[in-house]
Amino acid sequence: MKTTNIRERYNVVRKYTEQLCQPLETEDYVPQPVPFVSPPKWHLAHSTWFFETFILKSSLPDYRVFDETFNYLFNSYYNNVGDRVLRTDRGNITRPKVSYVYAYRQYVDEHMNTFLETLEDEKLLTLIELGLHHEQQHQELLVTDIKYILGHNPTFPVYKHGHNLVDDVNSDTGFAHISEGVYEIGHDGKGFSFDNELGRHKVYLQDFEISKALVTNEEYIEFIEAGGYQDFNLWLDEGWSWVNENTIDSPMYWHKINGEWFYFTLGGLEKLNPKAILSHVSFFEAWAYAQWKEMRLPTEFEWEIASDQFSWGTRWEWTNSAYLAYPNFTKAKGAVGEYNGKFMINCMVLRGASVATSPDHSRKTYRNFFHTNERWQYTGIRLVK
Amino acid sequence: MKTTNIRERYNVVRKYTEQLCQPLETEDYVPQPVPFVSPPKWHLAHSTWFFETFILKSSLPDYRVFDETFNYLFNSYYNNVGDRVLRTDRGNITRPKVSYVYAYRQYVDEHMNTFLETLEDEKLLTLIELGLHHEQQHQELLVTDIKYILGHNPTFPVYKHGHNLVDDVNSDTGFAHISEGVYEIGHDGKGFSFDNELGRHKVYLQDFEISKALVTNEEYIEFIEAGGYQDFNLWLDEGWSWVNENTIDSPMYWHKINGEWFYFTLGGLEKLNPKAILSHVSFFEAWAYAQWKEMRLPTEFEWEIASDQFSWGTRWEWTNSAYLAYPNFTKAKGAVGEYNGKFMINCMVLRGASVATSPDHSRKTYRNFFHTNERWQYTGIRLVK
Amino acid sequence: MKTTNIRERYNVVRKYTEQLCQPLETEDYVPQPVPFVSPPKWHLAHSTWFFETFILKSSLPDYRVFDETFNYLFNSYYNNVGDRVLRTDRGNITRPKVSYVYAYRQYVDEHMNTFLETLEDEKLLTLIELGLHHEQQHQELLVTDIKYILGHNPTFPVYKHGHNLVDDVNSDTGFAHISEGVYEIGHDGKGFSFDNELGRHKVYLQDFEISKALVTNEEYIEFIEAGGYQDFNLWLDEGWSWVNENTIDSPMYWHKINGEWFYFTLGGLEKLNPKAILSHVSFFEAWAYAQWKEMRLPTEFEWEIASDQFSWGTRWEWTNSAYLAYPNFTKAKGAVGEYNGKFMINCMVLRGASVATSPDHSRKTYRNFFHTNERWQYTGIRLVK
Amino acid sequence: MKTTNIRERYNVVRKYTEQLCQPLETEDYVPQPVPFVSPPKWHLAHSTWFFETFILKSSLPDYRVFDETFNYLFNSYYNNVGDRVLRTDRGNITRPKVSYVYAYRQYVDEHMNTFLETLEDEKLLTLIELGLHHEQQHQELLVTDIKYILGHNPTFPVYKHGHNLVDDVNSDTGFAHISEGVYEIGHDGKGFSFDNELGRHKVYLQDFEISKALVTNEEYIEFIEAGGYQDFNLWLDEGWSWVNENTIDSPMYWHKINGEWFYFTLGGLEKLNPKAILSHVSFFEAWAYAQWKEMRLPTEFEWEIASDQFSWGTRWEWTNSAYLAYPNFTKAKGAVGEYNGKFMINCMVLRGASVATSPDHSRKTYRNFFHTNERWQYTGIRLVK
Repeated sequence: MKTTNIRERYNVVRKYTEQLCQPLETEDYVPQPVPFVSPPKWHLAHSTWFFETFILKSSLPDYRVFDETFNYLFNSYYNNVGDRVLRTDRGNITRPKVSYVYAYRQYVDEHMNTFLETLEDEKLLTLIELGLHHEQQHQELLVTDIKYILGHNPTFPVYKHGHNLVDDVNSDTGFAHISEGVYEIGHDGKGFSFDNELGRHKVYLQDFEISKALVTNEEYIEFIEAGGYQDFNLWLDEGWSWVNENTIDSPMYWHKINGEWFYFTLGGLEKLNPKAILSHVSFFEAWAYAQWKEMRLPTEFEWEIASDQFSWGTRWEWTNSAYLAYPNFTKAKGAVGEYNGKFMINCMVLRGASVATSPDHSRKTYRNFFHTNERWQYTGIRLVK
Repeated sequence: MKTTNIRERYNVVRKYTEQLCQPLETEDYVPQPVPFVSPPKWHLAHSTWFFETFILKSSLPDYRVFDETFNYLFNSYYNNVGDRVLRTDRGNITRPKVSYVYAYRQYVDEHMNTFLETLEDEKLLTLIELGLHHEQQHQELLVTDIKYILGHNPTFPVYKHGHNLVDDVNSDTGFAHISEGVYEIGHDGKGFSFDNELGRHKVYLQDFEISKALVTNEEYIEFIEAGGYQDFNLWLDEGWSWVNENTIDSPMYWHKINGEWFYFTLGGLEKLNPKAILSHVSFFEAWAYAQWKEMRLPTEFEWEIASDQFSWGTRWEWTNSAYLAYPNFTKAKGAVGEYNGKFMINCMVLRGASVATSPDHSRKTYRNFFHTNERWQYTGIRLVK
Repeated sequence: MKTTNIRERYNVVRKYTEQLCQPLETEDYVPQPVPFVSPPKWHLAHSTWFFETFILKSSLPDYRVFDETFNYLFNSYYNNVGDRVLRTDRGNITRPKVSYVYAYRQYVDEHMNTFLETLEDEKLLTLIELGLHHEQQHQELLVTDIKYILGHNPTFPVYKHGHNLVDDVNSDTGFAHISEGVYEIGHDGKGFSFDNELGRHKVYLQDFEISKALVTNEEYIEFIEAGGYQDFNLWLDEGWSWVNENTIDSPMYWHKINGEWFYFTLGGLEKLNPKAILSHVSFFEAWAYAQWKEMRLPTEFEWEIASDQFSWGTRWEWTNSAYLAYPNFTKAKGAVGEYNGKFMINCMVLRGASVATSPDHSRKTYRNFFHTNERWQYTGIRLVK
Repeated sequence: MKTTNIRERYNVVRKYTEQLCQPLETEDYVPQPVPFVSPPKWHLAHSTWFFETFILKSSLPDYRVFDETFNYLFNSYYNNVGDRVLRTDRGNITRPKVSYVYAYRQYVDEHMNTFLETLEDEKLLTLIELGLHHEQQHQELLVTDIKYILGHNPTFPVYKHGHNLVDDVNSDTGFAHISEGVYEIGHDGKGFSFDNELGRHKVYLQDFEISKALVTNEEYIEFIEAGGYQDFNLWLDEGWSWVNENTIDSPMYWHKINGEWFYFTLGGLEKLNPKAILSHVSFFEAWAYAQWKEMRLPTEFEWEIASDQFSWGTRWEWTNSAYLAYPNFTKAKGAVGEYNGKFMINCMVLRGASVATSPDHSRKTYRNFFHTNERWQYTGIRLVK
């Protein structure tokens, strides 16, 4: 990538993060309602800290950090970069103020722009590219964390009128057939990818049929009305515990009001659209729904091979593959090596992308992953038989 | 109390609440770092809700509430007034914005001022007086909750320079002697008091000697350095568990940095003042310290009778009395009856007042109470032998 | 007490412990279903350990301990006597076998009998007396822990047919009146008492009327049927949380089967006797019941003064007094000092005695204490107005 | 399988269960120290309940169940067979007595023997075969649960002198090479297998080298001494939390006494044998050890294909494969369908067998599975590069 391109791309990505926050009030930047949701302010600062720490500080001997406390405050999980605020305590950081965090972004952006004018070091360019993809990942989290924060405020504030992000409908129908055989899986190394997609390799797939359409709200309501949440035979054992301990009876953000289904969206509380594609279900719910339909979820390999035969990109799709290393996966030394490898346990892979995914940040080899009970992302269901 | 007086007093008290918040940034109004600390915004709104709910709404048929959602959002613990936000979820209320909460205060204050112009109903005047004392209680919580929020921010922000609130020293020395006999305890009903102080009654006290001075920081450091936190013989059984499960080794807000004691104050992180009166200890610590000195804590009755013989008012003082009803305590019917009575279990009484207590809000019969492990208030130790 | 008397008393008390265990199967001696219930085997060994440790080991230079591991295994909570098995791990001690524990008892009893033949040291005699009262306390716990173990076995095994311990009825009716004035409280030091009863002292009581009868099962059923467990206005705030978090809707051991009340007793599952005195309620339930009757619980001082005017001894009676030190309470040095003092927090006092209390182990100054949610003892309610 | 054979096999298997319990004292049959360990008594009854419920009760119209309460008491996790004792409450079942459980076994065995005399129904014979394999699984759990119970008794009782089960050493050295290509995985359906092994299918493997030897104690001590438990770079993120929250610093049952390593074995507390094969490590530890060696764990497919090239059977071997359904896995209808499928989440596969595995109960296609933190089984490490 040429320097002019990377500068432009840097500025586009960085600006988009701030555009996402534009509808927020200062108060909305602060809270961390549950440990897995971070304050918007924290996302703004942390994505900036990545460039300051891994690029400016380590490449420019004369660079003066914006604020000495920020390495402690805005490191996420890199043990190699020193102590950090506990993940559960991010909501305590009322200061620095939001405006000071924006000043931090501006300061780092100015230094990055100057630095990028003359940068030709391939290794650094690659690291900057990683930083931009990292920021794009946080853009998606910003959207879903903002939704969580507003959606758990009892007054259901509107993020942006008319911008509900849940109105997509299926454009395809029927099933695609894939024949048994050896297939190639993983990223081919051309263009950007995360380390967990690399090591393109062969897998053997059996015959299967995969739905071209995702499950819709009205289809899922059938499952609810058929007593799906009450029938233990449909659930994984841990899923059944999860349902009962948390009294789960519908997807996240759904509310039954006077006998009618509503859901909280970024456009506010709305009447549920029955034709729209379902979202905000956990792996447990996806698995139970598939059982009820006497089908199953695809593996991540099946999904990747079949993905050219259907539309995707509006919802992350749960697969029945555990998030584990590809053959010959290798972890980089030092802090960057902490990016992906250490999370490869007790999560399931999601494939595709969602309405909250940033532009230019999706590809069919992308491996997203969450725990089996998490559902604050835009997550949906595709069936295989 | 005459109407002119109550209007003036109303405005003074209400204004003082806002003055306490003046040094805050918008972001500081939002978080609830632990369930027992409420967001400053919540205190501002809740104390206003009290007047709107118990005075304006119930006395003025034409009164229009400022916002229909506020009864749900800002009720604290009155089951009789309907559903409410869970105590642990107060930090989720990023909206209404801080400015809207101030508008709420202004709206209610205007209506209250109009209403107070002509008010003569004694029962209502009494209820307004209760509302003002209620607000003063929240003023003290505002100070200590702000301290908790800033003191658990890793950057230790300053609330107000030079305003540390922990520099008070003892003006008296020695012990006062009180002779055995029958004494009268409780409020005599002249002027305001809470219901838990009423029912003046006789108690029988034995001879005792009570220290005229409160324990100081340097005295408490002796206890620490003598291994007080490591010697189980000094602790109540539950206290010893508390010390070990929470790895407690000093009062709240104390930090040992390079071998020297500092503490977080509202003036920022400061070197500890050895001569100053100790604060931020739990009942467990107060009890253990007394054991180590081979003395004991006073009962609340001893304290009340002896209180004329020493200075008090800079620190709440732990007593060895459980918070229980006085003989003939009666609980009002309805929501106001929930004010005190239902908390009369598993708490210890504190007597006196603190540097955070509002002006005109202390008297020797006042019964404050907290759980035995709580120490975010300005709490200190007075010994008896 | 003369030596012959103490030997005889020693043997009577020790034998009674074993008689209580006589109906048990070997398997029943082992489990610890919850941390506050100890295995019967543990009680047998621990009460023996008391005599071995505090008498034989410390008085007889040539005494050989029965088993070196027992100090670790059967110390209850005496930090001064060295490390010990965690309280929650008592159920892990499947070995030593039950028969070996009985051998331990026999070994210690033989040595004690020899030792007692010639013992004249007053201090030791006092300590032995303490050991016997200690064993009697464990006898009561044995009964209630056995009931808990059998009562939480889904097959509801019978301990002893016809021996249900819950059939007592009131012999008195009406209220006794006590006049205002100064009264003497506490043990006078003649004969045995625990340290927490000592320090006889004056208290001032107001006029009160105390019920001569305890609350019965049928009276309590009225409370249940009136919705007592659903009305927050009747409960302490912590009590209301306890009810809801544990879905409490009746006393411990009560089961509603096909619309009829049964309870588990030591005689097996039986139809509830409506005329019998209520038992197995927590302090929270006692307090709520009193609220519902628009009365209150007595203080422990009121109870002690009034106790000559009614029958008592079939149920421990909750008082509204916190378990705290009497004036001039002093704690013995060393391990024996851990007996009572360190538990004086967050418990309420119970007065009287129960059907499970050992013969000769009750007196009106006795101060029993439990946490406000505990109810596996035979606990009942007496009202005051 | 012919009827005579199945009868003989039935009796051999059933008898072996009782032989395993022969060294136990009655007391050892009772406790459940942690939820994942069941009382030996429970295993004895539950494996018998399987035959009574699924064979005798459903095939013989005149069969009288031994005890009506046993369906409730000894059902493990079959929701389809009705209510059952909570898994965490198995330690409460002190009655029925151990001897009564043995009487239950005898009663069911007699009826089974009579029934087997003439049985020719293939479907029932298959179900009986499943019942015997089920009992063999419980035989292994019996061994490891007994070890857990005795090993968490502070007196470390001996199960059987000289029978330590941890003295196996490697017979092979070096690495075996497997070439890239398509391989067949899964059971071929000849002879017994569990449903989770069926559906033989093709997988594509890359080149790999697999160690012929398992990791030994002395090799693992090198990891410990190199600070393996303190270096976060070696651990999965959840593994690092597990280490720190549980202060893990060595395999289960290891004790460092005066600077020397000992371990609890079924032969009692013994000096650790450095040459013996390591056991009692969690998946987290296996993964970290592999990281430290700059190798990795095999997948279950690699293991199955390579397994002819090395000795195995003394330790379950952690693989880096999640426990998920094979392609075309189908779950039986009804209770038997609950056997395996509902546990296919958040567990890792172990391959091989252990010293505790029953004779005739191992094959290379067997898929064992446990959570990533569990280590009370005989679990070891084989490396791949």
